[in-house]
Parts: sequence; C-alpha cells; structure tokens
Amino acid sequence: MTAADSGRIRDELREIRRAFHRYPEPAWCEFVTTARVVDSVERIGVDEVRYGPDVTDPDSRLSVPAEERLDEWFRRAEDHGVRADVLERMRGGHTGAVAVLERGDGPVVALRVDVDALSVTESDDPSHRPAAEGFRSTNDGVMHACGHDGHATIGLGVLEAVAESDFAGTFKVLFQPAEEVAGGAKALAAGGQVDDVDHLLAVHLGLDRPTGTVVAGVVKPLAIRRFVATFSGTPAHAAKNPEAGDNAIQAAVSAASDLYAVPRHGDGATRVNVGHVDGGAPAHTNVVADRAAFEAEVRGEDTDLMEYMFEECATVIRTAAERHGCDVDIAVTGEAPRADSDAATAEHVERAARAHPGVTTTIPSADFGASEDATFLMRRVNENGGNAAYAVVGTDHPGGHHTPTFDVDERSLELAVDVLADAVLRLGESR
Amino acid sequence: MTAADSGRIRDELREIRRAFHRYPEPAWCEFVTTARVVDSVERIGVDEVRYGPDVTDPDSRLSVPAEERLDEWFRRAEDHGVRADVLERMRGGHTGAVAVLERGDGPVVALRVDVDALSVTESDDPSHRPAAEGFRSTNDGVMHACGHDGHATIGLGVLEAVAESDFAGTFKVLFQPAEEVAGGAKALAAGGQVDDVDHLLAVHLGLDRPTGTVVAGVVKPLAIRRFVATFSGTPAHAAKNPEAGDNAIQAAVSAASDLYAVPRHGDGATRVNVGHVDGGAPAHTNVVADRAAFEAEVRGEDTDLMEYMFEECATVIRTAAERHGCDVDIAVTGEAPRADSDAATAEHVERAARAHPGVTTTIPSADFGASEDATFLMRRVNENGGNAAYAVVGTDHPGGHHTPTFDVDERSLELAVDVLADAVLRLGESR
Amino acid sequence: MTAADSGRIRDELREIRRAFHRYPEPAWCEFVTTARVVDSVERIGVDEVRYGPDVTDPDSRLSVPAEERLDEWFRRAEDHGVRADVLERMRGGHTGAVAVLERGDGPVVALRVDVDALSVTESDDPSHRPAAEGFRSTNDGVMHACGHDGHATIGLGVLEAVAESDFAGTFKVLFQPAEEVAGGAKALAAGGQVDDVDHLLAVHLGLDRPTGTVVAGVVKPLAIRRFVATFSGTPAHAAKNPEAGDNAIQAAVSAASDLYAVPRHGDGATRVNVGHVDGGAPAHTNVVADRAAFEAEVRGEDTDLMEYMFEECATVIRTAAERHGCDVDIAVTGEAPRADSDAATAEHVERAARAHPGVTTTIPSADFGASEDATFLMRRVNENGGNAAYAVVGTDHPGGHHTPTFDVDERSLELAVDVLADAVLRLGESR
Amino acid sequence: MTAADSGRIRDELREIRRAFHRYPEPAWCEFVTTARVVDSVERIGVDEVRYGPDVTDPDSRLSVPAEERLDEWFRRAEDHGVRADVLERMRGGHTGAVAVLERGDGPVVALRVDVDALSVTESDDPSHRPAAEGFRSTNDGVMHACGHDGHATIGLGVLEAVAESDFAGTFKVLFQPAEEVAGGAKALAAGGQVDDVDHLLAVHLGLDRPTGTVVAGVVKPLAIRRFVATFSGTPAHAAKNPEAGDNAIQAAVSAASDLYAVPRHGDGATRVNVGHVDGGAPAHTNVVADRAAFEAEVRGEDTDLMEYMFEECATVIRTAAERHGCDVDIAVTGEAPRADSDAATAEHVERAARAHPGVTTTIPSADFGASEDATFLMRRVNENGGNAAYAVVGTDHPGGHHTPTFDVDERSLELAVDVLADAVLRLGESR
Repeated sequence: MTAADSGRIRDELREIRRAFHRYPEPAWCEFVTTARVVDSVERIGVDEVRYGPDVTDPDSRLSVPAEERLDEWFRRAEDHGVRADVLERMRGGHTGAVAVLERGDGPVVALRVDVDALSVTESDDPSHRPAAEGFRSTNDGVMHACGHDGHATIGLGVLEAVAESDFAGTFKVLFQPAEEVAGGAKALAAGGQVDDVDHLLAVHLGLDRPTGTVVAGVVKPLAIRRFVATFSGTPAHAAKNPEAGDNAIQAAVSAASDLYAVPRHGDGATRVNVGHVDGGAPAHTNVVADRAAFEAEVRGEDTDLMEYMFEECATVIRTAAERHGCDVDIAVTGEAPRADSDAATAEHVERAARAHPGVTTTIPSADFGASEDATFLMRRVNENGGNAAYAVVGTDHPGGHHTPTFDVDERSLELAVDVLADAVLRLGESR
Repeated sequence: MTAADSGRIRDELREIRRAFHRYPEPAWCEFVTTARVVDSVERIGVDEVRYGPDVTDPDSRLSVPAEERLDEWFRRAEDHGVRADVLERMRGGHTGAVAVLERGDGPVVALRVDVDALSVTESDDPSHRPAAEGFRSTNDGVMHACGHDGHATIGLGVLEAVAESDFAGTFKVLFQPAEEVAGGAKALAAGGQVDDVDHLLAVHLGLDRPTGTVVAGVVKPLAIRRFVATFSGTPAHAAKNPEAGDNAIQAAVSAASDLYAVPRHGDGATRVNVGHVDGGAPAHTNVVADRAAFEAEVRGEDTDLMEYMFEECATVIRTAAERHGCDVDIAVTGEAPRADSDAATAEHVERAARAHPGVTTTIPSADFGASEDATFLMRRVNENGGNAAYAVVGTDHPGGHHTPTFDVDERSLELAVDVLADAVLRLGESR
Repeated sequence: MTAADSGRIRDELREIRRAFHRYPEPAWCEFVTTARVVDSVERIGVDEVRYGPDVTDPDSRLSVPAEERLDEWFRRAEDHGVRADVLERMRGGHTGAVAVLERGDGPVVALRVDVDALSVTESDDPSHRPAAEGFRSTNDGVMHACGHDGHATIGLGVLEAVAESDFAGTFKVLFQPAEEVAGGAKALAAGGQVDDVDHLLAVHLGLDRPTGTVVAGVVKPLAIRRFVATFSGTPAHAAKNPEAGDNAIQAAVSAASDLYAVPRHGDGATRVNVGHVDGGAPAHTNVVADRAAFEAEVRGEDTDLMEYMFEECATVIRTAAERHGCDVDIAVTGEAPRADSDAATAEHVERAARAHPGVTTTIPSADFGASEDATFLMRRVNENGGNAAYAVVGTDHPGGHHTPTFDVDERSLELAVDVLADAVLRLGESR
Repeated sequence: MTAADSGRIRDELREIRRAFHRYPEPAWCEFVTTARVVDSVERIGVDEVRYGPDVTDPDSRLSVPAEERLDEWFRRAEDHGVRADVLERMRGGHTGAVAVLERGDGPVVALRVDVDALSVTESDDPSHRPAAEGFRSTNDGVMHACGHDGHATIGLGVLEAVAESDFAGTFKVLFQPAEEVAGGAKALAAGGQVDDVDHLLAVHLGLDRPTGTVVAGVVKPLAIRRFVATFSGTPAHAAKNPEAGDNAIQAAVSAASDLYAVPRHGDGATRVNVGHVDGGAPAHTNVVADRAAFEAEVRGEDTDLMEYMFEECATVIRTAAERHGCDVDIAVTGEAPRADSDAATAEHVERAARAHPGVTTTIPSADFGASEDATFLMRRVNENGGNAAYAVVGTDHPGGHHTPTFDVDERSLELAVDVLADAVLRLGESR
C-alpha cells in the first residue's frame, strides 16, 4: 500500500481501494486486510486501535473455516509480508479491527464497514477494469465482488476526516470481518463494540444504485439464518442387505425436499433454500451411504418469521433423520435479524447527501430486499437506547454484485467519504 | 516383474501377483498392468495376442474416465517404464488383452480374468502382509482390494499350463479391464472376443470361501445397471425471486427420494440405491442451484426385473426434472445382465476340483448374491450356442473384499491354476 | 314469508331475514330463496326482474352440483310450495335474480348481494338465538352461517328505498348465487349483468367488525382458484403383481405433498392448501387403487401470483400422474381475481356512513385478508370504465363465520339498508 | 335351509351352499350363517358344539365393526328368524362355531373352514348362475364372492361323513368367522380351539384351479398385517394463518408416499400398499385439515420380513405425524403369519385325492402367493407339536375371486367332502 504512504487517505482513495482489491481474503481470513487497516489507522493517529480476539467474541463467530484453511491463509499472509505483531494476534481467525477517536464530551458515533471478499474467480477480460489496469485479484478464486474493498477504504477516509475535524465526542470505525457469511456482526456485537454507541451508521456501495444516488436509510432487510445439516447413518451393502443400513442420503434428500413444503405464514414473507447438497461417495452406488449433508438458509420478513421457518426446518430435519435411523447435527453458519434504519438518524445522512454537490438523487428510505448482518449491530444499539441507519451510496457497477465482472466507480469513494463524514459531524451535534 | 524373467510362470505365481499388487490401476487405466500381461503372454508364446482398440469395442466401454484422468495414468505408465509400442496402442483407455493359442482341431475354450483395481487406500498396518512384506500399493488411493491381481496371475498361469499341454482346439485368455465399474465386459463382448467360444470359464478368488474350497458354478447373480442423473436448471436469487429459478437441487432430491418408492415387483427381488449426491455450491445458500447430480444403481433377480427398475427410475427422474423445469441427462456408467452357470460346464470344473489334492470342499453350485459383468460374456456365448460357468476358488482373506486390509492366501493361486487348467483340458475333450 | 306480505320491507327486515335463515340452500340450489326474492321484488315494483338462464352464463358457472343433487333440491322446493313459473325457469341450477329500476337519465348504479348457504349443521344450543327463537335451519346440514340471509334481505331493503326515492338513473340489485364456492360471480359477469354499470357496490356483514362499524371499501382480497385433481390409474393385486398397477393413490399423495413445496414468489404472498383427499376403497388394502382425488386451492396477493401458483400446481399434478402412469383431470371449481375498492366510490359509502347516527366507527379502507368472487364483477365494471367498492357493515356475531353458532345482530340490517341506499343516491348524483 | 331338513347333508350339498349364498354376512356379523351351522351340526349329532364368546377370544378379534353396524346385522338376523338362543349368545359379534366329535382313543384331527362374505355387489346378469337360478345375494352390497358359502357346506359334509365312519379319536370342525379381514383365526387360536390338535387341515375352493384338481398342501403364503393410521391435527384458515394449523392431510399424504420407500430387504420379498386414503372434508379447501387417515398393508415372505415392514412403516408414520405436529394412532385391523403345509400331513390329502375317481390332477405342493389367516391356527398347532396342511380343491369359477361374477362349480362340493373326509380318516390312523 505504498500509495498511502505518501500522504492523506482522501488523496489516495483509489490506490488504497485497488490495493485491497488486489489482495482479497475470505471470511475470518482477512489477515493482510486487517493488518493494512491497522497500519493506516495508526498512521492517521487514533486514541485506540483494537484487533485480535478483543474485537469479536470468539465463541460468537459463525462460519469460521477449518483450522487447516485458517492456517493456509495465515501462512499466505506471512509470506505476503505484513507486520508480524499484528498478524500474530489474529492467528486462529481473530480478524477485524476497531479504531477509536476520543474527542472530549459528546455522543458516541460509530461507522461500520465490512472487509471480507467472496469465493468468485475474477474476470480477466480486458473490458474488466481491474484486469486491464493491473489490480485484478492475485488470490485465485477469491474476489472483492461486492465492494468491501471500497467499504474498507471509505472507513479509513471517514476516520481521517473526522480526526481532522472539530468533532466532539467519541467516534469509532468498525472494520468487520465475515459479512458475506453473515458471521461477523454477531461476534462484533457480542464483543461489546457497540454497547456504548449512540448513533451507528453502516454503509454499502452500489446495490444497483448509480453513482450520485444516496439512500439515507434502508429498511426491511429480510432476517436470515444459514445452517448446515449433517446426517450420520450406518453403511450397508445396497444389494445384500439394504435393510441393515441407516441411509443418510435418503434422510438428507427427503428432508431437503420437505423443507420447501413448510407452510407459508399468514404474517408475512418467508423464504427457504437448499443451496448445496453432498452425500455418499463418488462411484459407490453399491453402498448405503452413511453420511450426507446440505447447506440451507431461511429468511423472514421479520425475525420471528425467520425463527418460525428455522424451527419448522429443524423439525423436518430431525424427523427425517429419525425416520431413517440417522443422527443429525444442525450447525448455524450465519445469521442476521431484521432491523430497520431509524428515520431521525437517516435524516442526518439525507441532509449530508443533499448538501453534497456530487449527489444528484437523495432517497430518504428504501426497502433492502436482501439480508445483511449489520442488523445485529443495529439491534444492539437500539437495545441500549441508541439509533442506527444503514445507508447506500450508489456506484455504477458494470457487473452485478457477486459476479466475476463486478467493479465500482471509484469516484463514489470520495463522495461516500464526504457524505458520511458530514453525517458523522451532524450526528455528533445532535444531542 | 523381474521374478517372471527367470523361468516358468507357475513357479513365480507369488512374485507375479505381488508385482501386480504393487502397481494397481483403476478401470480403463490398466496401462502398466496390460503391458505386463502382454509381455508375459509373449514370453509364454502364443499364436496371437491382441491389445489396444481391437480388444474392446470403443463405443461400448462404460465409465471411461475423463480424458485428463486417462492422460494422467498414461503419463504415469510412461514414467514407470513399460514397452512404448504396447503402451501407445492403449492411449485413450483401450486397455485389456486377449491371448490366443491355436492347437488344431477342437473346441474353442476361453478363460476370462479381470485386471483392474479399486479406489481404496491400502492399509499400512504391519499386520497387513502387503505392508509388512513390501508389496503394498505404490499408487496412493488405489488398491487391488478384490483379488484381480491374483486373477491376472491365474490367467497367465493357466495359459502357460494349457500351452504346455496336449490340448487340442483353441484356447483364449481374456484379460478384461474395468470390471469394478461393470464397464469392461460389455465392450469385450461387443468387440467379438467370445463370438466363437464353445466353453467359457470365469473365475473369482475368495468371496468369503476359504482356501481349499471350490464352487464349480455360481448362479443367480443380480443383474445390475449403474447410472448418473445430472439435472440442469436455472439459477436465481433465493430471496429476491426464487420463482425465477429452475431448482436443480429440488429436482434431484425429490427424484432421489422417490427412486426408493418404485413398487416392488411380483416376479422377484429388485434393488435400488443412490450412493452419491452432489448439487449446488458450498456456502451458496442464497442461490437456487442450477446443477445437481446423483449416482444410483438398480438391480434385479433377472435382467427383466433390472430393466423394470431402470425404466421406473428413468420415469421418476424425467418427471421430477419436468416438474422443476430442469433438463436431465441419464448416463449409464455400468451394467451386467443375469447369467447362470451352465450345469454341464460347471461339472467339468467340479471334477477337476475333486481330482485336486488341495481342494478340501467342492460345491457344485451356489448363489452369487452380488453382481458381475462377466455375465455379458456368458450370455453372448449362450446366444451363440456355447456354454459358460463362473467358478469361485476360495482363499483365506483377512479383510473383506473392497476394504483396506483385503489380501489373498497366495497358496490358492497355484491351486486355481491347476484346477482351471485341468477344467480347460476336460472341456477341450468334451465334444 | 308472511311477514313481508303485510307492508314495507324496511319494517319487516328481521322477519324476512329469519325466513331466509330458516330455509338455507346451497350453491346453485337457491330455488326457494330466489323465488322469494323474485316475489318480493315484484311486490316492490320494478321495471324488470330477471331470473333463470338469462342471469348467469350457464357455461361459466363453477361448482354446479351433480344433476341428481340439483334435482333433489328442486323437488324439495316444489314440495315447499313456491311459485311454479319462477321455479321452472331455474330447473338445472339457473338460480339468482337481477332487479332493475329505470328512473330516467343518470348513471347506472348496482348493488351486489349473495344469497347461498353453507354445508354446516346449525347449532341447536338454546344459547343460539335461531334455535331459541325458532328460526333455526330446517334443512339439515345446511346453514346460513355467513350472513347471506342478511345480504339478501338488505338487497330487498335497498331496492325498496331507492324505488321510493327520487334517484335518477338506473339501479340494479344483483342477487348472486353460489358465492361460497366462488362459482357465481364469474357467471354473472359473463351473463353481462354489469356491462353497463357505472358504479358497483358490494356488501358483507360482519367479518369480525361489530355493529356500528362500517368499512367503506376493502382492498387486497387474495385472488383464489379452487380445483379438484382426479387421478385414474390401473388396479392390481398389491401382493401378486404390484408392478402391474398404475397407483392412483401414490400419484395423488405424492402430488398433494409436493404442492406445498411450490417455491415462494418474490413479488408477494401466495397460498396453497389441500383440504380434502379421497382415494381407493375402504378395507381394500390389497388393491393398488385405480382412483384418487383431492380438492385444493391456491391464492395470491394478486391475480398473477395466484396464476403462478396454479400453473406450478398443475405441473406438480401432471408430472406426478405421469410418473405413476395415471391420467389426471384438473377441474376448476371456483375462482376470484384480485380487485380493490375504488377510493372515490368508497368515499360515497364513507360519507353515507358518517351521516348515519347508528354508525359509531367509519373506516375508509381496510385489507380484506380472505377471498370473494365479487371481484369478478368489480373487474368487469373496471374494464368498462366504471368503478366499484366493496363495503363491510359490521354486526356483532357470537360465533365465527362458517361455524354452527354464527348469527347476526339484526339491528345491523336496517343500518345497512340506510347507509347503502344513501350511498346509492350519492353515487347517482356523482356525475 | 329347508332342503337340509329332509335328510343327509351329502345329498343336499348344493341346496345348503345356495342357502348360504343367498344370505351372505360380513366379518363378525355371520349371525344367521353361524346359527344355521349350529342347527345343522346338532342335526348331524355331535358331542359338543361351541358358539358365542367361548369360540374366539373376544380381545383378539381384529376388525370388529362398530357397534352400530353389529347391531344392524344382529337385528337383520332377528328379523330373518333364526334360533333366538343361539343368536343371543352371539350378540356383539361373537360369531363362528366349533363342532366336536369324540370317538374314543386316537389323535385329534381338525378341519378349518371359513364362513364370512365380502363387500361386493353381486352381478344380476342372467349369465351369472346365482342370478339366473334365484339364489343371488339378498343382502345388497354383500356377496359370497370367495367361496366361503361352499367352505361352510364342505365343513358340514365332512363332519357328517366322519360322524358316520369308524374314525377313532377326536374330530373337530372349526367354522371360522372374519377370514376376509384376516381377523378371525388369531382369535380362534387365542380361544384355545386348536391347542389339542394333532393334525389340522384347512381348505379353499378354486384359486384358479379347475374342478378335478387338488393341491394337497400349499406353502409360502405371505405373512400380512393390515392397519389404519389416523392423523389428528389442528385446523386453521388456509389463507389467514396456515402456520397455525397442524396439517393432518399433509402428514398423511407425506407418510403414505414414504411408505413405498421403505428399503427392500436382503432376506426376501416384502410388500406394502396403501389401499384407501381419506382426509379433510369435501369442498373445504380453505381449511387446514385436522383429520386424515389411510388404510395400508404390509407383507413379507416370512413373518420376520412382515414385522420388519411394519416397524419401518410405523416409524415413517410416527415421524411424519411428529413433523407436522399431529397425533397419530396406528390400529392393526388384520394379520396372518407365514406357515407352510407339513409335507407328511399333505401326503395324506394327496393319497385321498389320488384315490378319488373325480380327481384328475393331484399336485403335492404349490406356492400360495397371497395371504390367509389360517396360518395362525397352523402355527399354533405346530407350536404344540402337531402338524397342519392347507389344501386347495379346484373348482371352475367363471369370474375371479372377489368379483361380482364369482361362482363355484357345485360338483366340486361333493368331491371336496369325499377327499377331505378320506384324508381325515387317514390322519386318524396315522399314529
């Protein structure tokens, strides 16, 4: 990240974002990413920077990869050459960081950005700017295909701007790991990082909004829970004594099929999907399989509806296992409740947006449609009497989110930094 | 295979078998194995030895691996250092060999042995003789765990014995590839290798019979067909527009579940099993999957019953795909019809066994229980007016077939060679 | 209906309603009910009264009972002693009537009321007023358990009120048969009865609103379609040759189970339910059944969503039949599209309600929640450039709709007549 | 039964059979039938005749109809005019009778015949002899469509023949009720009726064998169990709050569908079938049903295999109920174990058949194919050290068993009486 060495963050947003883009890391493996964030934060100068096991509650982390995979990315980070002291504290997947500015008496304001990447192989087509301009992913099969490279950059930019302002109070930037698996925010909340927050902002680039558009506060995200159901049975020869087997594949496919038949709910929208199934062993058609698993998700228009779906699915899975004499384990791998932006909080974002000459369209509120684990942080803030808003800063993106040709319009980085820093200052004066 | 260099096959059966055991190759990749067979056959001296595309009809081969995998095993064979001319003819998976002795006027007698290995990782426990005595598999993850190393050895031994005898007629040994996937015998039959055969013998070691026991002719193998069903749908976002997807996982799990519900048949036993299922992508719970597949098998007490099961399963699969708007492809990967040993033919084996001092128990006929693709050859011989018998030569085996500790009692090799050679001579005189 | 003989409808509302209540008739069997309506309408004096095949398009009627059942209710009506000329025209289930007042130049205003009863056995508990006061159903197993006895009464009352007013234009009252099966309104629309209507009102009593409450215009009824799927297969002996059967029960239960698994839709709420299933024959466990059927319904937040559900269900049913070698017939037995009350039209009802001293609560608009086939008429009016509103007049009802103790607060009859007549006059002046 | 009044049974076989045929009674309602049997038995003269609750253990009776139905058939019997004392003892469905001849020292030999009829409406086609000759069923919807009218007649004929012979020992005839529902033999065995029997014979007419053929001892009947599964859930409005329901139809159809998917068993043939399903209420598509039931049967090549199927089905049903929050009751309505004819016992029948001039074909042994609850009696005899055989006496039958045109060739009645009486005498001398 040599570019950032030379001076202020705001002047180097493009270079910083490209450096993040070039080295994407998956959930709980954001070792290099976090180390760079810590580096930049220290350069900006803050009162405290937290990283390692203090940031996220270790036991609340969801979808932490197997140790082997964590080790592989850790070694890769070592080879890449980041600060050893920072890296060492993250061993075992304790990624993410929190930067804190203490500026006297005043409210506690926080900005949450997420920093992880996706399992997508980035396009190498010359029409794809990162490929053409040399900042395509150098980690095969992993890609910043949802703009979190930009989010991390914006987090640093806003931190710098607030640090340089006359903001009075406390300002935090939360660099959250593992959003894509809906696995990080719960742990960040459980780690106590927002317990003192009066005003929380979260931000996302794009989401089909063009450069120049700002949505001040999104509402109605779907509550979500992801889980893996793993069935264990008893193998048997499929021709000689099929009755001796406890067929894990039969249990799993029967359950997977029945999940879709959970009754609709009169109170609102629900969703269920099985996105991955895997059982038995290739070519072993003559074996009654003793292992099968699937990954699924449920959603609901609100948290109760999601819980309804989860309970029903758990019953489907449990009874299917019982019917086939199998044991089953249901492991939650990700989740996010429903939380809506607070109108008053969003209004500060809206005013900041309207005040910015680069913003052509300001939308006070819009439906989210999808899910986001920032809602864990928003609810925690709400529970403690604070308020929260989730803003979208539009950006022209040629490919869709999560696709190999996703990219952001880098002009939106400065715009986002300016609008959010302004909103933070307005929130700082709000009580 | 230096051991065989020194002299007669019959004196080196143990060493030959161990050489095969040390270098197991999977179906259609038996490059080194076949080259060694050809080498030994030529040393014995025959009138003709066939290998390469002439042996098996290329289009009738089932479960031929992907080109990449064939190439990998081919290169491995090149590195291993076998005869280049023989190897070159097998490029593309044209493995297996047929040796022919022309000894004047008389019937055409054939012996079929199979030569492929399994995807099993061999035990390295000191109590496992191949590990203790240094002939454990050198190809990781592949193992002669069903005795085909012994079968190939026996084939060579019987060929030598008949060559040295006063047998009058034609004698062939068929070294068949790809039995474990039920993929080779159909192609061998389609290749015309048994069209002129009057008496066919096939042999298997072990099958839970101890050393000293011979079953002259097994009957009632189950007819079998193995297949892969691959469903192709349309992806969609599982929360935003699930209705837009054509859910390949839902189609596959629904079909896999329903296969087991194909009605029983009044005419006899049937079987069905799904041994492997795989759909969607890990962690992609939010995607309506556009691809899912499973591998299954059907069996029947006779060929018609197997065909009944296959037709019913095909209907289940096709209608499940149709219901979910998916395309589906059903590819047969292995099969074997029902064929029973001919009593008169088996009687020659029985007499040979009774005449051998090492044989303590002779069983005229027994049920097979499982499936074997030698039945393709037996039926072809029957169709042309010939007869066939499938013999079992017992061998003490510490671990079960297809397990990491399978091994044969090498004393049974000589016994098998003697009994089968005697049976061949008796058959040669039988008309 | 001797009470009504003596004078004005408005003075006899209670008696008229009780007469209807005492003689409930199911869908398309409203012979006595229609004859009484015609009688009263003629007594009021109108320019035209239509009944018989002219009212509903015969081929668009849904859920018409079997001829035998129609005949039975027809004979019962003959025995009951209604006018033979009126009755004769209704033979075959051509029930329902339309009364028309021609009062010079002005808009065409229509009021739709429904007149059929339900298959519910009325409570004979003394706490149930109809039982206590002697007007309990005399037709065993059939009951006015949804207030249509009141609706028919209100239709007569409003007709009289408008006839006595200085209303200028055309006023029609549509006495619709077969609402409970969602089978009458489609035929009334197809019969052309609302083609010339500028303003259509429909009305329902109760729906959990107390006496004194009026909802001026309900919105968001769920679109609905009801259907019967009948599977025909081939019988076989379940032990001797199960494979020879085409199992209609297996097809039906598999389809019924899978209907619930039709994917949720991203655009809004959907519903599906199987409410009745019947297959095979009692005690015949040894027969592969050749007949099975179920009755189901689908709903959607709008008509397209209902159509989506129906198409998906039809595919489920068709492919399940195909899988089991059965034929299947899907017969639609009832339906209703989505149609919302027009705000301007509802405002006239709202004003009339606010002007009435007995109305304590006026609600401009509320969600319907359930389904109603009046929407067929509303859409037809909309298609021709007219407007429509569906009003609810609250009534205290001790038991829930469709239960044996349902009853209406008869004070709400007069209130409904007054408010609706006032609304008709306001609509008459509205252009 | 006036015909029988005039003299010997053997001279009136045709008339007696026709009298039974004219008045068929279903399982446990054989009031008139039993009373007639008792009457004839007393006329023949025996040492003991048992009827009423002493014959079958009341609690072991399966498929006893509801009290209302028992009462209806009881009253019908009263109206028909049979002996009041006999009838009174059978009140509550204690039908069936046992006649005992004590003839000094010697073995205990027994003959079992069954006497119940089926729920079939008899043909009134003139080509159907009972219709043409005036002895068609006078009980609408009930018919002797499986020859039990003949069996009862044969039982009387053999009793008379043995009574008139010099047989030494004890001879019993068991007139068993409720065979068609597999509900009577278990209770007869539990009632101790065969506890002292050394040699048991059972007989069936027809079974696709022509007049003149006798099968001495059938083997390999399938063990069977019939049951009803009744699911109880919670009703709910299918549109307003489907999630509030516990859907009994969904539970039942899911279970019914899954029953067919119980794995095949390596030890032999199994069967399963759902022959009747019934849930919810007609036209109530908008109700989540709170009740659904199905009737099913399982069979096995032997009793253990049947038990395996039953246990698996019970698990399917129980887990399906649990998945949908329903209660479920599984009630066994009929059953029969496997029992094979004893070869030595059958040989006596064979010899008797060969000695009879009317017998053209004698078959020592044949597979049964279907199920029969006589096996309960055969097993009880075996358990006590006795032997049993089940014979078939062929008869030309125009229509198939259980069809409206079934009839027997009455010449086979005399043949059966003669052969069985002869076999009884031979068995009497056999030790």
